[in-house]
Amino acid sequence: MTERETDVVCREVGLRDGIQSLKTFVPTSEKIRWIREEAAAGMPNMQVCSFVPPKLLPQFSDAAEVAAAALEVNGLWVSALTPNLKGAEAALKVGVHEIDFMNSVSESHSLSNGRRSTEQAFAEFERVRDLRDSQPEGKRFKLAAGFATSFGCSIEGYVPQKNVLKAVERFVGAGVDEVMIADTVGYGNPRDVKQLFSRIIAEFGDDVLVGAHFHDTRGLGLANVYAALEAGCRRFDASLAGLGGCPFAPNATGNIVMEDLVFLLEGAGLNTGIDLEKLLPVREIIARNLPDEPLHGTYKKAGAPKGFPFASAA
Amino acid sequence: MTERETDVVCREVGLRDGIQSLKTFVPTSEKIRWIREEAAAGMPNMQVCSFVPPKLLPQFSDAAEVAAAALEVNGLWVSALTPNLKGAEAALKVGVHEIDFMNSVSESHSLSNGRRSTEQAFAEFERVRDLRDSQPEGKRFKLAAGFATSFGCSIEGYVPQKNVLKAVERFVGAGVDEVMIADTVGYGNPRDVKQLFSRIIAEFGDDVLVGAHFHDTRGLGLANVYAALEAGCRRFDASLAGLGGCPFAPNATGNIVMEDLVFLLEGAGLNTGIDLEKLLPVREIIARNLPDEPLHGTYKKAGAPKGFPFASAA
Repeated sequence: MTERETDVVCREVGLRDGIQSLKTFVPTSEKIRWIREEAAAGMPNMQVCSFVPPKLLPQFSDAAEVAAAALEVNGLWVSALTPNLKGAEAALKVGVHEIDFMNSVSESHSLSNGRRSTEQAFAEFERVRDLRDSQPEGKRFKLAAGFATSFGCSIEGYVPQKNVLKAVERFVGAGVDEVMIADTVGYGNPRDVKQLFSRIIAEFGDDVLVGAHFHDTRGLGLANVYAALEAGCRRFDASLAGLGGCPFAPNATGNIVMEDLVFLLEGAGLNTGIDLEKLLPVREIIARNLPDEPLHGTYKKAGAPKGFPFASAA
Repeated sequence: MTERETDVVCREVGLRDGIQSLKTFVPTSEKIRWIREEAAAGMPNMQVCSFVPPKLLPQFSDAAEVAAAALEVNGLWVSALTPNLKGAEAALKVGVHEIDFMNSVSESHSLSNGRRSTEQAFAEFERVRDLRDSQPEGKRFKLAAGFATSFGCSIEGYVPQKNVLKAVERFVGAGVDEVMIADTVGYGNPRDVKQLFSRIIAEFGDDVLVGAHFHDTRGLGLANVYAALEAGCRRFDASLAGLGGCPFAPNATGNIVMEDLVFLLEGAGLNTGIDLEKLLPVREIIARNLPDEPLHGTYKKAGAPKGFPFASAA
């Protein structure tokens, strides 16, 4: 299995980042329906769950079942998040295509969110990397690392770019396949995003894939997407209807809105493989199962511009 | 009077674009309070009213009084919008620093919104230009032209860039001092924005000022700001709390949110002269007088990042 070929890779993370801190349990059958319907709208790539202790995040007590169902969807690239070796082993058992290892650039965020130092997190990453490397060729999963608080942290404030570069360098040296630079609490600014992504892509772009994971906490999410695009980034996380947030970031609204992201990208002439008109109705699964959650998204509200996509009319 | 020196010029247009289509009349004293308080927060530039027949837009029946009060605010650059010579004469009588002449790139929008062809609009512009040129040196107002539907129009759909360039060329040739490129109904995409602004600035940037007037109809407003910034644009319209819309654009939400714009610019290290913490309370004037209008803005919701502005902490 390889990822589908598109100009830009969008990845739905609503089933992980979108629901992780919600008290309402989304029924397993509805999670699976969400995956199937969004994949049918052309979504090439989904992070479908987190392998963590159910005591910590009960939302993911059905992780194995959800991931297994996702793997049955033809052509869908399936990834799962985990903070540790135990979760990676569970994910490997199900057979996901990609395991995303979480770590933070900010020491304080690492301690409060992951209850471990960045040093301990890296040591744990090496164990997950060893797990990957010990697999026979056909079972070797892709290993990504997410770098939370790459722009700032509610505890430490601004995070210097040199700290992010140092962290990324260490993971690249240790054999990671992809790095996801995350603006966990909306501290990123397009100028800084362009600068940081340019530096990371220049230094490490030949060795690893570089993706962006933005939150829209302070309204700059899509401006940051464009800045990262300008820097050469072609991989973006987002969640349908902008579902999500961070339990450790007060007032943090969710991920950038998938529909708006796709509108930006397709409008810019970049093929995402996603059919916006088929994507919108999938929001109803969220509305039905999480009636108390606000559904974000301006594209949904305003509708398609007349004659969109313009490329086909040109 | 000259405009205040800043890295980027933000202009508040809520008192014109924000309220023009609202049924609730904002009392004159409250409009003046808004102007004074926002100017006190550092706003260098405000479009404070429209000089149009009160029968057409009753909201502006007090235009002369509001403009006169704005002109008493020390250091504030005051502009007023008008579609015709008659309005320009009224604005001149009050003595505003700048008159903004409205016209549309799309023929259909010109006919439906302005009830005249683009040809007729240009002829009217020439009359306003003659009015400016006939003034003695000290009374010569700055003359700007707004180009509505520069990216698309709800009637015609996509508007080709060559049409915008042709329209701008004609106004520059006729002696306009500034052009405001307007995405009236949210058809703009950062790729197109960067392209169009780059071309306009390259071709006409030596002769006239070039500004951007974006609406956030489809969520790309701030991404478009960053794209225009990248193209060299340093003049942006916005409205406090994103108030506004277009009566001829169904579902069109308002202008981009001033607070979020300032957050983007200051975060990118660009001095706007505006104090965000003083700006936010001015929203209360809108809330008080227009209780039925939604107040937009993510910066207000999430608050300042810890240690912001980072520049001072670096």
